[in-house]
Amino acid sequence: MQSLFCQYHYLRNRFILSILTFVGVLGNAQEISRYVNPFIGTSNFGATNPGAVAPRGMVSVSPFNVSGKQNTMDKDSQWLSTPYVKENHFLTGFSHVNLSGVGCPDLGVLIAMPTTGVVETDPLKYGSTYSAEVARAGYYKTHLETSGIMVETTATPRVGISRYTFPKGKSNVLLNLGLGLTNEQGAMIKVVSPTEIEGVRTVGSFCYYKPEETYPVYFVARFDKPAREFGIWKHTQKYKGVEGQWMGYNGKTRTYRNYYKEVVGDSIGTYFSYDFKETTQLQLSIGISYVSIENARENLEKELGKNTFESVYSETRKQWDKVLGRIEVSGGTEDEKTIFYTALYHTLLHPNILNDYNGEYPAMATRETKHTTGNRFTVFSFWDTYRNLHALMSLLYPKQQSDMVKSMLAIYKESGWLPKWELNATETTTMVGDPAGIVIADTYLRGIDDFDIEVAYEAMCKSADQITDNPLRPGLEDYLQKGYLTTSTTSSGSVSTTQEYNISDFAIAQLAQKLRKKEAYSRYTKRAVSYRKLFDKKLNLLRPKNDDGSWYHPFNPDTGANFVKNFGFIEGNSWQYTFMVTHDIPHLIKMMGGKEPFTKQLKKVFDNKQFDMANEPDIAYPFLFNYVKGKERLTQDMVDQLRTTYFKNSPDGLPGNDDTGTMSAWLIYTMMGIYPVSPAEPIYTISRPVFDRVTIHLDPAYYEENTLIIKKEGNPKGYIKHLELGGKKHERFFITHDELTRTGSLTMYLK
Amino acid sequence: MQSLFCQYHYLRNRFILSILTFVGVLGNAQEISRYVNPFIGTSNFGATNPGAVAPRGMVSVSPFNVSGKQNTMDKDSQWLSTPYVKENHFLTGFSHVNLSGVGCPDLGVLIAMPTTGVVETDPLKYGSTYSAEVARAGYYKTHLETSGIMVETTATPRVGISRYTFPKGKSNVLLNLGLGLTNEQGAMIKVVSPTEIEGVRTVGSFCYYKPEETYPVYFVARFDKPAREFGIWKHTQKYKGVEGQWMGYNGKTRTYRNYYKEVVGDSIGTYFSYDFKETTQLQLSIGISYVSIENARENLEKELGKNTFESVYSETRKQWDKVLGRIEVSGGTEDEKTIFYTALYHTLLHPNILNDYNGEYPAMATRETKHTTGNRFTVFSFWDTYRNLHALMSLLYPKQQSDMVKSMLAIYKESGWLPKWELNATETTTMVGDPAGIVIADTYLRGIDDFDIEVAYEAMCKSADQITDNPLRPGLEDYLQKGYLTTSTTSSGSVSTTQEYNISDFAIAQLAQKLRKKEAYSRYTKRAVSYRKLFDKKLNLLRPKNDDGSWYHPFNPDTGANFVKNFGFIEGNSWQYTFMVTHDIPHLIKMMGGKEPFTKQLKKVFDNKQFDMANEPDIAYPFLFNYVKGKERLTQDMVDQLRTTYFKNSPDGLPGNDDTGTMSAWLIYTMMGIYPVSPAEPIYTISRPVFDRVTIHLDPAYYEENTLIIKKEGNPKGYIKHLELGGKKHERFFITHDELTRTGSLTMYLK
Repeated sequence: MQSLFCQYHYLRNRFILSILTFVGVLGNAQEISRYVNPFIGTSNFGATNPGAVAPRGMVSVSPFNVSGKQNTMDKDSQWLSTPYVKENHFLTGFSHVNLSGVGCPDLGVLIAMPTTGVVETDPLKYGSTYSAEVARAGYYKTHLETSGIMVETTATPRVGISRYTFPKGKSNVLLNLGLGLTNEQGAMIKVVSPTEIEGVRTVGSFCYYKPEETYPVYFVARFDKPAREFGIWKHTQKYKGVEGQWMGYNGKTRTYRNYYKEVVGDSIGTYFSYDFKETTQLQLSIGISYVSIENARENLEKELGKNTFESVYSETRKQWDKVLGRIEVSGGTEDEKTIFYTALYHTLLHPNILNDYNGEYPAMATRETKHTTGNRFTVFSFWDTYRNLHALMSLLYPKQQSDMVKSMLAIYKESGWLPKWELNATETTTMVGDPAGIVIADTYLRGIDDFDIEVAYEAMCKSADQITDNPLRPGLEDYLQKGYLTTSTTSSGSVSTTQEYNISDFAIAQLAQKLRKKEAYSRYTKRAVSYRKLFDKKLNLLRPKNDDGSWYHPFNPDTGANFVKNFGFIEGNSWQYTFMVTHDIPHLIKMMGGKEPFTKQLKKVFDNKQFDMANEPDIAYPFLFNYVKGKERLTQDMVDQLRTTYFKNSPDGLPGNDDTGTMSAWLIYTMMGIYPVSPAEPIYTISRPVFDRVTIHLDPAYYEENTLIIKKEGNPKGYIKHLELGGKKHERFFITHDELTRTGSLTMYLK
Repeated sequence: MQSLFCQYHYLRNRFILSILTFVGVLGNAQEISRYVNPFIGTSNFGATNPGAVAPRGMVSVSPFNVSGKQNTMDKDSQWLSTPYVKENHFLTGFSHVNLSGVGCPDLGVLIAMPTTGVVETDPLKYGSTYSAEVARAGYYKTHLETSGIMVETTATPRVGISRYTFPKGKSNVLLNLGLGLTNEQGAMIKVVSPTEIEGVRTVGSFCYYKPEETYPVYFVARFDKPAREFGIWKHTQKYKGVEGQWMGYNGKTRTYRNYYKEVVGDSIGTYFSYDFKETTQLQLSIGISYVSIENARENLEKELGKNTFESVYSETRKQWDKVLGRIEVSGGTEDEKTIFYTALYHTLLHPNILNDYNGEYPAMATRETKHTTGNRFTVFSFWDTYRNLHALMSLLYPKQQSDMVKSMLAIYKESGWLPKWELNATETTTMVGDPAGIVIADTYLRGIDDFDIEVAYEAMCKSADQITDNPLRPGLEDYLQKGYLTTSTTSSGSVSTTQEYNISDFAIAQLAQKLRKKEAYSRYTKRAVSYRKLFDKKLNLLRPKNDDGSWYHPFNPDTGANFVKNFGFIEGNSWQYTFMVTHDIPHLIKMMGGKEPFTKQLKKVFDNKQFDMANEPDIAYPFLFNYVKGKERLTQDMVDQLRTTYFKNSPDGLPGNDDTGTMSAWLIYTMMGIYPVSPAEPIYTISRPVFDRVTIHLDPAYYEENTLIIKKEGNPKGYIKHLELGGKKHERFFITHDELTRTGSLTMYLK
């Protein structure tokens, strides 16, 4: 929804009128954001952070507590992909660009830290323990124990605002551009005036995969009070040789006091110092841009203006209330509401906006400055999110989902390829498969069609068919010739990748059918089930094949769990992948020998603890019992069991990495009692809802009905006996997206 | 002379008319630059370089051959203050900002290097041996043996131009912003288009004394042909820890191909690649500024415009001809003319312009952007140059000298203090003493008075009298109380510093007298001879005193030669300093017991090999025999002997470090037969000239006579018998500046 980013009262654009009209339907939702607990997922490797952020904001201001041996989990002593973990207790500042729920470290830079006394530039010395943390949607607060400073943060979409309450005396605010979540370095700082800093910081190279894909993030920082003194520090590398002996500062940190010129280098920072005669509040506001310093300044000026910390937080909280208020629930405990709305909050962090206030953004790959009239979104972790998150966006925020698809198509135009794992206009090429087309088809088939479907179809076919120089589908030649990738094609995930390509081809087929492209429909439909050749009847499981068509041997289907690398499967094993053919379950049932063997085999995944709630490949498994008439209770039991086991109102309340909202989306659906079980098929399957009543406010620009109400009737501990859809009895445990949104009402009767 | 920097035909300013008028008097001087051999001083620690440069240009394009163990003298294995030494044979590029004749490393950055084949970013791999070097005023050429590329360079005042003649095939031009003469690092590069780069490089921290005094040099580089491919490389530091293991590029160099965004870091560079179908010439032009990238671009556009390499070189050569043509000589050998004009060339490198084409420059210390209508000069190594170079400038280029004084006064206004060793708007505080005022007084007393003398006088008195927080005269309190610094005041140079302060006070006294400030004249005159208290009659030498007034003991007057550190003297010993009281020689003679003991003691300096031709304190010694009537022949013999011993038309043709032209100025004077023996006294003493006739074209804006002719008559191997000044017999071996320039003719009769 465009409105997310322009409802700030100080923003002006042509969307405002239509937004205000629509906002009216949200009703009395103002208080919903109180159910957001941003600490959920900050432990147990959930990789979320409690930073203050606006819906889909470019900026978040998060405590950064992963540096230093004072901490249990130090970013340098282990693999950490988040600026904050609840286990730690020593923070070294507040980072202004952060990722939530990702598996590799990136961003986590522009780290500001208030201190007292003399300026100290070593984070391990100026860092502090902290207490009295408070985190809400759009707000974070803590007390620094070493200095007695109270820190509060909030944010607009492109500006992070910090309010420091300093005790009387000498105080400083440091902006450390050396420290960051990753080992990536390089920055420029220029002090513009005693109240303003501008600069650049290098970020990127997600997972350290593509060293050449780093890029600058630009910023302009402003204080609301002029510094008494300021300066820039620079850490010097240690040099050997004769000259090194002359350098008194060899390997040390130098300071440039009241210096107005650019300082550039790998590890630099700046301090602004004050001498307060009494307890004093100081506001630091940092505007961000991925285009230029000028745009960062414009973002700051247009979004912050003369607003105070209070008014910004009030507005951002209002935004959260509105966007979270798209769903209203009744019934359920306070904790259940909290995990539900926090999950919804987590799906509203990424994808986030990339474009500046003026519409400019860096084009994919070239980073050429381009302009958009809608929102250009970024942080597309499609291997995760194609499975459920985008279907949720299509239902709840179709304008946003449309802009996401438009962003994907723009990326295709800019770089020649659809994105796979796009991050701030770079392609990280993380994970396998070709998932963008699945999202596009799924969106279109759910009726969100205000984008250029022909270009989209062309883009999808390109990655499906171009054999040489295809960055999205390595091993495509084998896939097309043999139907699958072999252990020679790739040493990691030959079966998984085949399945992913199958699902992508299924998506193209579904879209082709919709677009009445019969030949293509037929061709891609055939391609979409080639995984069948990897089905080993002896094991009733999928199994890698060698180049000569023989089975990979020796083969242990258990190998590959817990991220152990194996030949056939990536981030999983055969158990966790065999059923990941949700577009072909009836045939899988047949191959397995019928409904009983299928159910038995699927149940074995859970009974033998092969199911992994923390990763995506098997994420739809608990719903697959619904494909066997009479076994639906297994789905209901399993979904409830998983949800109550893994999702809690506590820092370890996510099963693992949130994967930019995918785990959260799973939770939201299961708590509502519907699940989009098969990507690119606009259907939901059913499980027992948590809430008595769920009201979804549908966007009238995309849906005929204004509301969709999902109700639970009867014995809340019972099993679903039958459904009513728009008041009519519905026999199947599957409902199409169209049926659901057209009728506007689904009631589940439990007994 | 303003004209130096604006006679370029493509330049426009209001000075042009007056300049053109004046240029007329230079007559037939076009060919004089052929006598410049820029290789003189490139060996024997002369610290000059053969780079192409315009008169007093901000930019020079010098071969950079001091990196890599392939070289005899590697910058990392020894103290090297020059980008080029003749001893070496392996060059790694061409640096665009360089210092000539200084004792500490600085600048020597923006190093461009043409290569062939695949892009290699390690200087030790892409470097090359070279041959067929040619260096002229404003031109340098060599042949790179590894690649077969011919490199030619030339320059306007603010733009360095390189012409590469590439063989057919794949070629590259690298601009390495990591490599530099010093260990200072930090840069930003942004490729603007396939023909343009902009960026910043950190320089400064001369001698590594003041780590906080580094600053950016900005540049815009343009190629005359678009690159087929370009990229930026960045060297990554080596990280330890878990994440370091994931970094395939840990401690390695990464490349960003066809990348248009800023890259920042300690060690980065850029390459522009071509594929030439035949032998092709490529021109690289780099505009420089110390203010901003925008100014660097404007400098490039205004000074280069559409000019070709040929036309720029032709114009720069014309400029050199004009400025060198200020003196015409006849008689003397070709080698003598060459060492003479090369020395003059060396006095025309520093001080150099700091202001951009538009008049902007960074203010002293704050680096705030300021504007000047004249030229703002920089690189003031006053401890060296106050002794002779500025007097020469007053004679030959009074407008330049006036602008230099104005620059000094602007520095005073900007920073509160006159400069001591100023370098690109930073105060390096190198060496001892308070020399700026000596230069100002000397200039004023020579009749160059078009600057604000009251401000100048105020500035001089401030450093002479302000006891606390005085950066120019440490130890001033002792000096004022006791008349001298003691071994407790400073552990290095208590006597030397006392003498320097004496000379500065003498300068103030002389100026006060001229300005009719009687009290001040009397007071400073007294202060100017307080060195006498350090005269040890037993030794007939100066000697350090302790805090209690006792002589420093044990004391060996020989200690301190060859830069051995000692208590009383800096860069010298008692022999080399005792006579450095040229403003008080008659009294020194008295203290030594009369003319004979004085002569004997002075002669001993030479006989005992205590005289150091390579350093400044004793630079006037050979002329001091003239103070003893009847001993003038000793001066003539000694000057000839020193000149012929130490000055040659070869790379080792300077006695040592040129000290930004001070050694060269000594040579110029001695070859003309006059020497400004006592700073701030507008007098010359006489020695045997080399040339039969020297014609100096005086600037009519400052001098009544248009020409000054110094002639030698009689036996050229004989001694000076008598002089004629303006046709009148002149008995003394001393002539005032006024007498010399008013009469316009000095004839020396030798017998």
